[in-house]
Amino acid sequence: MAETTGILIKGGKVVNEDCSAISDVYIENGKIVDVGPSLQIPAGVRVIDATDKLVLPGGIDTHTHMELAFMGTRAVDDFHIGTKVKKEMETLAKEKGVNSFKMFMAYKNVFMLQDSELYASFAQCKKIGAIAQVHAENGDLIAEGAKKMLSMGITGPEGHELCRPEEVEAEATQRAITIAHAVNCPLYVVHVMSKSAAKVVSNARRDGRVVFGEPIAAGLGTDGTHYWDKDWAHAAGFVMGPPLRPDPSTPGYLMDLLANDDLSVTGTDNCTFSVCQKALGKDDFTKIPNGVNGVEDRMSVIWEKGVHSGKMDENRFVAVTSSNAAKIFNFYPQKGRIAKNSDADVVIWDPKMTRRISAKTHHQAVDYNIFEGMECHGVPIVTISRGKVVYEAGQLQVSPGQGRFIHRVPFSEFVYKRIKQRDQVSRPTAVTRKPYEGKVVSV
Amino acid sequence: MAETTGILIKGGKVVNEDCSAISDVYIENGKIVDVGPSLQIPAGVRVIDATDKLVLPGGIDTHTHMELAFMGTRAVDDFHIGTKVKKEMETLAKEKGVNSFKMFMAYKNVFMLQDSELYASFAQCKKIGAIAQVHAENGDLIAEGAKKMLSMGITGPEGHELCRPEEVEAEATQRAITIAHAVNCPLYVVHVMSKSAAKVVSNARRDGRVVFGEPIAAGLGTDGTHYWDKDWAHAAGFVMGPPLRPDPSTPGYLMDLLANDDLSVTGTDNCTFSVCQKALGKDDFTKIPNGVNGVEDRMSVIWEKGVHSGKMDENRFVAVTSSNAAKIFNFYPQKGRIAKNSDADVVIWDPKMTRRISAKTHHQAVDYNIFEGMECHGVPIVTISRGKVVYEAGQLQVSPGQGRFIHRVPFSEFVYKRIKQRDQVSRPTAVTRKPYEGKVVSV
Amino acid sequence: MAETTGILIKGGKVVNEDCSAISDVYIENGKIVDVGPSLQIPAGVRVIDATDKLVLPGGIDTHTHMELAFMGTRAVDDFHIGTKVKKEMETLAKEKGVNSFKMFMAYKNVFMLQDSELYASFAQCKKIGAIAQVHAENGDLIAEGAKKMLSMGITGPEGHELCRPEEVEAEATQRAITIAHAVNCPLYVVHVMSKSAAKVVSNARRDGRVVFGEPIAAGLGTDGTHYWDKDWAHAAGFVMGPPLRPDPSTPGYLMDLLANDDLSVTGTDNCTFSVCQKALGKDDFTKIPNGVNGVEDRMSVIWEKGVHSGKMDENRFVAVTSSNAAKIFNFYPQKGRIAKNSDADVVIWDPKMTRRISAKTHHQAVDYNIFEGMECHGVPIVTISRGKVVYEAGQLQVSPGQGRFIHRVPFSEFVYKRIKQRDQVSRPTAVTRKPYEGKVVSV
Amino acid sequence: MAETTGILIKGGKVVNEDCSAISDVYIENGKIVDVGPSLQIPAGVRVIDATDKLVLPGGIDTHTHMELAFMGTRAVDDFHIGTKVKKEMETLAKEKGVNSFKMFMAYKNVFMLQDSELYASFAQCKKIGAIAQVHAENGDLIAEGAKKMLSMGITGPEGHELCRPEEVEAEATQRAITIAHAVNCPLYVVHVMSKSAAKVVSNARRDGRVVFGEPIAAGLGTDGTHYWDKDWAHAAGFVMGPPLRPDPSTPGYLMDLLANDDLSVTGTDNCTFSVCQKALGKDDFTKIPNGVNGVEDRMSVIWEKGVHSGKMDENRFVAVTSSNAAKIFNFYPQKGRIAKNSDADVVIWDPKMTRRISAKTHHQAVDYNIFEGMECHGVPIVTISRGKVVYEAGQLQVSPGQGRFIHRVPFSEFVYKRIKQRDQVSRPTAVTRKPYEGKVVSV
Repeated sequence: MAETTGILIKGGKVVNEDCSAISDVYIENGKIVDVGPSLQIPAGVRVIDATDKLVLPGGIDTHTHMELAFMGTRAVDDFHIGTKVKKEMETLAKEKGVNSFKMFMAYKNVFMLQDSELYASFAQCKKIGAIAQVHAENGDLIAEGAKKMLSMGITGPEGHELCRPEEVEAEATQRAITIAHAVNCPLYVVHVMSKSAAKVVSNARRDGRVVFGEPIAAGLGTDGTHYWDKDWAHAAGFVMGPPLRPDPSTPGYLMDLLANDDLSVTGTDNCTFSVCQKALGKDDFTKIPNGVNGVEDRMSVIWEKGVHSGKMDENRFVAVTSSNAAKIFNFYPQKGRIAKNSDADVVIWDPKMTRRISAKTHHQAVDYNIFEGMECHGVPIVTISRGKVVYEAGQLQVSPGQGRFIHRVPFSEFVYKRIKQRDQVSRPTAVTRKPYEGKVVSV
Repeated sequence: MAETTGILIKGGKVVNEDCSAISDVYIENGKIVDVGPSLQIPAGVRVIDATDKLVLPGGIDTHTHMELAFMGTRAVDDFHIGTKVKKEMETLAKEKGVNSFKMFMAYKNVFMLQDSELYASFAQCKKIGAIAQVHAENGDLIAEGAKKMLSMGITGPEGHELCRPEEVEAEATQRAITIAHAVNCPLYVVHVMSKSAAKVVSNARRDGRVVFGEPIAAGLGTDGTHYWDKDWAHAAGFVMGPPLRPDPSTPGYLMDLLANDDLSVTGTDNCTFSVCQKALGKDDFTKIPNGVNGVEDRMSVIWEKGVHSGKMDENRFVAVTSSNAAKIFNFYPQKGRIAKNSDADVVIWDPKMTRRISAKTHHQAVDYNIFEGMECHGVPIVTISRGKVVYEAGQLQVSPGQGRFIHRVPFSEFVYKRIKQRDQVSRPTAVTRKPYEGKVVSV
Repeated sequence: MAETTGILIKGGKVVNEDCSAISDVYIENGKIVDVGPSLQIPAGVRVIDATDKLVLPGGIDTHTHMELAFMGTRAVDDFHIGTKVKKEMETLAKEKGVNSFKMFMAYKNVFMLQDSELYASFAQCKKIGAIAQVHAENGDLIAEGAKKMLSMGITGPEGHELCRPEEVEAEATQRAITIAHAVNCPLYVVHVMSKSAAKVVSNARRDGRVVFGEPIAAGLGTDGTHYWDKDWAHAAGFVMGPPLRPDPSTPGYLMDLLANDDLSVTGTDNCTFSVCQKALGKDDFTKIPNGVNGVEDRMSVIWEKGVHSGKMDENRFVAVTSSNAAKIFNFYPQKGRIAKNSDADVVIWDPKMTRRISAKTHHQAVDYNIFEGMECHGVPIVTISRGKVVYEAGQLQVSPGQGRFIHRVPFSEFVYKRIKQRDQVSRPTAVTRKPYEGKVVSV
Repeated sequence: MAETTGILIKGGKVVNEDCSAISDVYIENGKIVDVGPSLQIPAGVRVIDATDKLVLPGGIDTHTHMELAFMGTRAVDDFHIGTKVKKEMETLAKEKGVNSFKMFMAYKNVFMLQDSELYASFAQCKKIGAIAQVHAENGDLIAEGAKKMLSMGITGPEGHELCRPEEVEAEATQRAITIAHAVNCPLYVVHVMSKSAAKVVSNARRDGRVVFGEPIAAGLGTDGTHYWDKDWAHAAGFVMGPPLRPDPSTPGYLMDLLANDDLSVTGTDNCTFSVCQKALGKDDFTKIPNGVNGVEDRMSVIWEKGVHSGKMDENRFVAVTSSNAAKIFNFYPQKGRIAKNSDADVVIWDPKMTRRISAKTHHQAVDYNIFEGMECHGVPIVTISRGKVVYEAGQLQVSPGQGRFIHRVPFSEFVYKRIKQRDQVSRPTAVTRKPYEGKVVSV
């Protein structure tokens, strides 16, 4: 079978997060067996010529909503936390290989947790060594804002952003970080969508907080001016929560922070609905299903806006598309690195080719694409997933069910090493005093 | 009677917030009748020589808890808001002359309001033109923090600060400002105690938020290192909420912001308990009655740390001790200015005299003083309240019941002019679109 | 004569920086004689009905280049400082009533001072009590940038901005403030044109620096995208130094800071050239005469973008258009306030009228207007200068030579009070030590 | 010979910047030959048991002044740039393997470069692919400040800091970054000593500048309060430029930024003088030879203040003590990583042992130690340099002349990849316009 026969990727530039080097990569049985210059390989092995190409670790989408591992992308699964799940969280972590849980500060009366519940959830995450993820928007303010917009006759997609401006996101981000710090619990902020929320995350990191911010492809590649588009269907296609921001300098700002390790990883929050599904909210923006595409174009958008623009180099690209996620979710260097003994998840990337993103040519079912028309330098040529070629020459070669859940171990060192040390050395101590022996009088 | 006979303050330097000038001040019937150089006054009038002295508007303590107007200080009364008071608020504002209400984000299960309740209260304040005041600390985090400290065996006053570090204050401050902005309601943050909370207020003002921050004498004049004092009684004397901060650069920082109009007014939150009363919490810091002295020494502390240090000039001193408060609470220029027709609330101040603050000599009943031993340049010589000398030559001449509630009118122009204009010009408008006419499909 | 006969402005709302009140204003002999409700005035006096109008202090343009006091606007004259002028500075200040001097960090080989020269000039300014003004741009970087742009074939007006991006301004601003602080000298930064430079000023003020930032009408009302206009003459019309910035959020940001007292006063740097004069640089942007209009429209632009937008109220408008300038340059409250004994420089302002700015209707000679087409709420109805009506019913009534130099006294209290106090209390002192008595060995 | 015989480091935890793993490390001929679990090694090889120990890449001191590679530490040599050296720089880079040059903004009349000279030097560095290093302090302000202090009778070591407060450093840092950005040249700021300078570097990185900040052991481990010590010799021992800062929160702040990759690498600027040499400045602080110890204790201080405190983990420790320097100076992964084919520069580290730093026990000739008395967790047990054990059991086994200059290749990818890409994609283009055909009139 294809996956047991070896593959030799020859003459490419192997790109890891720390450096790049011209090397061959030899794959067998789903694993990388060797990496080095001019590898001597037995006959019969398939050889892929990667001269003038880059050989990258397969991307890890930290944040998507779908069943299928797509184009070699692996999704990091997360579990939504309602109230009082503490026991179940422990079981999931210990027995089921789940090491991250997502909490909502938005979606009032549905998912939204109060601060005391967040505190308890974060405490539980820390106890079991999981990653506490948070959707950071102030649900009360969104609820009030939506009422207000509708009462003013604003029913279209622009209302979606107007009812939850970026300070609603920044406030919740600040609050989540404060609560997490009170617990000394690491925090992962999903879909950081605004400059102000990103700045909150960045400043917290400067102060030493163990917090990770995840921008997504949509936020890095487009902006919220589309909500004001005259075409309802176009505008509705961009509806997601938190919304894209109308400030056109947002994507560049988020990319600068991602390049600088103020933000850590990239997801897509991929969750696509057709125009006809979006139309459920045609008279009321609060009823538009939230979600945008992104999973297919994530790597291209980040390359174009990040690497081609000169904001980050190819090594940082690998860090933000795979290595950092692998570290956070505790399967590095099994994933996220091209190295001996790592899983054979590899993308061969042509940095000189260009393509234009379009719904007409994409491989997703949805009938529009929020990046429509974007010219992208950098194109994946071959994608290898666990040792099998799953994409080549523009053709997907993947069958349903091929995605596989990755059992994850808690207490990721990358995340928890500092946390544990701080617990040991930063405990406050009581002042030693003589007992008060004077009179006591009630107020 | 004393108050109907005129008083001529002669030859002093009259200090208002905008400038100073050598002028006489003539007072009759509780009002300032004239201000100018070399006033011609009928015989029989008492003349107070103010040569080489400053003539200042009487201080307005924006934040105290006491029955008695003290030493010419007027207290701005505030009313605490519990839940569902909306009707009562309107009555108080329209009929009783109350134009400010205080909401708590701290004191869980007692006063603490949820975000949606804050939103509703702010909306009501705005409707009736009142000043929404907020005690900004995250009550949930304080409750958890206190439990944690006690569980670690930290029962002394240092636990009071450790359970509610400054980010607990900064977070709530940010949240309150965000909620107020969602309502387009002005906000007044009482007792800003930390650098980070003060920075939140300052940044919000830069962004155009109508928000006022009030540091208090305690926060400007001392710091939270005292909670670690070996003497329990000493440490307990500084317990108040939010706490003084252990970072010794805090008072100077707050004063810099006050000098620069990032913070606006000064209060004391004066609320004194004797050591024997404080001792209720001798075994558990959560039971120590919260409150410190300040009202008597407010002017001296601000002069010493603000004016004598060169951080602000005498005019800014007047702004932060009286004029700004008068503007915010809507009785300017009746109060807060030495001018024709203003109320005759006047302090004659000797900027060259010095005194040392001490519990041994202060006029308050409480048996300690948090500013004990502070050398202050600048001493009040004479205090005149509504035309009567109430303090002179070191002697109080005030009798109980002399304080008078000032009926206040809502919709202070200083506070509400911008708010109203924004409501008119900043309303979002709906995008005009053709209706969506395609298929609608449920998700 | 007109100026000796009194004028009664009746029923208007008198607006000062601290508050507004419905009052009559009575003027005689170039002075304001009385301000109050329902003034009783002898017959024969001209009465101007100001019902529903605002009565404002005449604007003080802190920064213009022209001979003529225009429309009641007074210019604050400044003197450019070359190298080694120390003696002359003292003479100008003591004998000629000049209390501000302008230093250049730009214009290499012409006006540009080195840091050590700036230090010496600031020290001299401080000694004589003058205001040190600075044009803050790094002249070396501009010179290099201009060479670079021209070498790349960029010869049009866009090159003017590209060769001196905003960090070139921000850097010099930071440097000037640092040097001034080393001297403990107050500093006035003319024409703050960028967000980053404005932020530098604002942050310095927060840190307690005595520094004043002056945005100008052009920077508050338009932006640098015009340099990329396809019409050369249009683009060239906006050329000034420092340039307007292409970031379209700049004007709103500067106005926010001006509203918040992070920036203090407004000028115009008015210096107009016709299109034919600008054409000297038609093939080389470095040869385009630098200068834009502004003096006529300053008040309207600031009202529209500041007051009508809700960013500031009418009182702050007075502060930034006249009172603060009068304080800094030491003729407050003679100017900058509507009060008894102040100079009768008054503008009657209709906040409800609107007008459209256009070169077709303006009163300046220049053949274009950088604010062309701007709709402005708020229109001056009558302008009174030193007691004489100089503008009324759309007609100027001013004759050449009517402007008058105002003799200014050094050591403005508003500026220097804190400086002097700091010199007294902040002197470092030497540590007392026993002399070192060990061996000394050369390195 | 010892260096040709292999060494097996057995059972240690190999720590690289990206992750840690229990592995054996086998060394032969100065190179790491293999890394992996349970390596099979021929007999006769020396085996070092590293169970429960960490195996780290040998530290690279980015900034020291000495002939000898000390305790396995390698110094990155730098060359000071005076004026007009352009040709020589090229020769050094192309033929001598020097790829970094250091420019001074301080030391007026000695080394100090003017802005235009800095511009030219940076441009030359970029052309030849070198790292431009800068000592960032405003030399003019230092010169003036020193005069001022001496004139005030402040002659002791405290004058050294007072004459050059941290804003003198921050200003120059900002200026250097601005100039470097004008050239699109990478920049390396040596010895970042203050919070404000560090913040300047951090903010520039957020904005996408290619700039690296280097704190040093002294700045991370102690502070400038020592300049006020009553003992002259003690105070003088801390004199270096830029000085240590009296703000006691400085070291923790710098460490936070180092942990967060706002600062990149650590040096020592090691340059020691005996007390008798320091005494040259006993009557005049400007004559005290500048320099402190640090090279020996660098790793311990960073471990104690960084890792033991919980601010960074062991992997970040490796990044800041070796990997990042190796990347910047272009010899990664030859150095800075424990991996197959890397140089055998290895430290075996016991994270549980503690030692107390003292001049009594250190291996340097100098008679005091600025870290005197510091308790350090984490002690080096064995140091291997190019395959030879040079330190073991508390004994140095190194002979003079053993240090070796490392020939370095220009255009480090880590530094220059983004720079080159930006040059390609960020060139401004001229606006296409019709020529101006109107009249031209001179001004």
